Amino acid sequence: MPFEAAIIPVILSGGSGTRLWPISTRERPKQLLSLTAEETMLQLTARRASGPRFAASIVVGSTAHAQDIEEQLGEIGAAAQALVLEPMARNTAPAIALAAVAAGGDATPLLVMPSDHVIADVPAFHAAIEAALPLVAEGWLVTFGITPDAPETGYGWIKVGEAIAPGAHRVARFVEKPPRDRAEAMLADGDHAWNGGIFLFRADMYLGALGTHAPAMLVASQTAMDRARREGKRVYPDADAFAESPSESIDYAVMEKAERVAVVPVSMGWSDVGSWDALHAISARDENDNVCGPEVLTIDTTGCLVRSDRARIAMVGVKDLIVVASGEDILILPRGRSQEVKRLLEAMKERDA
Amino acid sequence: MPFEAAIIPVILSGGSGTRLWPISTRERPKQLLSLTAEETMLQLTARRASGPRFAASIVVGSTAHAQDIEEQLGEIGAAAQALVLEPMARNTAPAIALAAVAAGGDATPLLVMPSDHVIADVPAFHAAIEAALPLVAEGWLVTFGITPDAPETGYGWIKVGEAIAPGAHRVARFVEKPPRDRAEAMLADGDHAWNGGIFLFRADMYLGALGTHAPAMLVASQTAMDRARREGKRVYPDADAFAESPSESIDYAVMEKAERVAVVPVSMGWSDVGSWDALHAISARDENDNVCGPEVLTIDTTGCLVRSDRARIAMVGVKDLIVVASGEDILILPRGRSQEVKRLLEAMKERDA
Repeated sequence: MPFEAAIIPVILSGGSGTRLWPISTRERPKQLLSLTAEETMLQLTARRASGPRFAASIVVGSTAHAQDIEEQLGEIGAAAQALVLEPMARNTAPAIALAAVAAGGDATPLLVMPSDHVIADVPAFHAAIEAALPLVAEGWLVTFGITPDAPETGYGWIKVGEAIAPGAHRVARFVEKPPRDRAEAMLADGDHAWNGGIFLFRADMYLGALGTHAPAMLVASQTAMDRARREGKRVYPDADAFAESPSESIDYAVMEKAERVAVVPVSMGWSDVGSWDALHAISARDENDNVCGPEVLTIDTTGCLVRSDRARIAMVGVKDLIVVASGEDILILPRGRSQEVKRLLEAMKERDA
Repeated sequence: MPFEAAIIPVILSGGSGTRLWPISTRERPKQLLSLTAEETMLQLTARRASGPRFAASIVVGSTAHAQDIEEQLGEIGAAAQALVLEPMARNTAPAIALAAVAAGGDATPLLVMPSDHVIADVPAFHAAIEAALPLVAEGWLVTFGITPDAPETGYGWIKVGEAIAPGAHRVARFVEKPPRDRAEAMLADGDHAWNGGIFLFRADMYLGALGTHAPAMLVASQTAMDRARREGKRVYPDADAFAESPSESIDYAVMEKAERVAVVPVSMGWSDVGSWDALHAISARDENDNVCGPEVLTIDTTGCLVRSDRARIAMVGVKDLIVVASGEDILILPRGRSQEVKRLLEAMKERDA
């Protein structure tokens, strides 16, 4: 093992996950929900970064969800060493900076993970981490490149460059969410990967890169942590200081600009569960290609995703439909159009305004 | 006017209307619901048989709905002269017999109407009644024949025979629910009408016909009324006596067998609202051919019927779908398949058993 120190998982729990409305809401976003298993997305995330290799995690989230986060991690015996509660959302680069400072800002490796993704093949994930560690020890910033299986236009892509270590490559180029034809070409090429938003690097190297490429962000985050209020394991960074930080993604602020950036390609059954269609794709389906709970009765119905927290749903003769009932809200759309939940939410906001 | 006596509307409110599940249930069946207007189907029925031509109605219903019936008729100032509460369902022929006895069994004309049909053109209905009355005075049993506009296989049909009075014809033949090709042929012929289940005849003539063609039914109904318990306007026919009655429709027990049976063809915007498809067909539709309440938000959605008593329903990219949310139940099926609600209810019963 190239490191004495255990890896600190940094779990980013700041998303609002409205693309899975009406189950996911600002009050109870995707990461706090059980979508693919009994355990919530947050619990599954914490669980896949536990074991002798890992220290207790640092979770970055919002005050509104602090109690839920603590309860969910407590339930599975995976309490965080620190819960950093962002005074306001400033995208991923500053959030990770807060965690890097909380971790001590030293050579400890940080495994940065969104809290609302699925990884079906955890051993493959762990193997990829092992492949990354030697480079991380040498100061590289490592991203994990998901082996693509579709021409996704909703993800960033990474052009995988020359091999620099077993299983690890230099990043040749980051590609922002591409148009369809570009995505198809990259998928066909075979030398591109999806940017899954999972990173491994030393805390000091990340903060150093931030100092080089986004110094205002480093100052704001550092100051916010210096002036933070602490309450048990909860850390409340100073709001005035943190407000000064630019709001940028780690990709844009650091990864696309830094020199020594590596990618470890990995095929691990990853999904960001970024839509109801994505959930249908990764869920166990019955013999009629339906994903239904026990509260659903179907006759002559195929290819549907039907979820309900309470209501009984009865369907006849329906094909390829997504139906989600939660509380007093019901969503209905055809499979393939679940990205348009956003349009609906905007239209609802407009109507209620 | 051929009659001194005003016509007594006989409103049959015994249906359970489960084809409009989940809005319509045994507890609150179709006739007690507002489906096509602010007023309930029962209220609309009572209202279209009110005015100087009509006496107060006799309603035949079930004990479970007595209070609802009284309240709804009270709300529109159309209280019944008698509310006959059937101890058990015995189909329409005995139900009408109870009403005929309650009406006095004399020459008073009875206008028998289901309580859960729609008639858009009430003046046309009233004109048909006027056309029927001279024959009714002479002792004919009159049925109203709905001018058909589709090859309906779910209705009984009537072959319209020779003219016997202005606007009135002898019934050449009753045709039970026909197969599709037969229905198409009858529609093309132009000499058939739908049997809408609305009748006009003298109470004595109906009871007489019953004595001839279904004597056991007459005895059971008469005895049940002789031994009835009365409570204000409520009439509780004797259960033991009524239980002896065969269970038959008026068509089968009387109309198809009696000698002097006439039909008055009428085009009056009639619908039995016998399915969600039927409701879509007769409802006012928006520019996208949708029938939606204010609780529904649609984007790129056409040809849908969406109803909800409480939940907010959001839809994108959906076509020709029926969605009904009521309480804790949600029904989803494509337009054209709403007859299959029955299958769903049976499947649910099986599952719950």
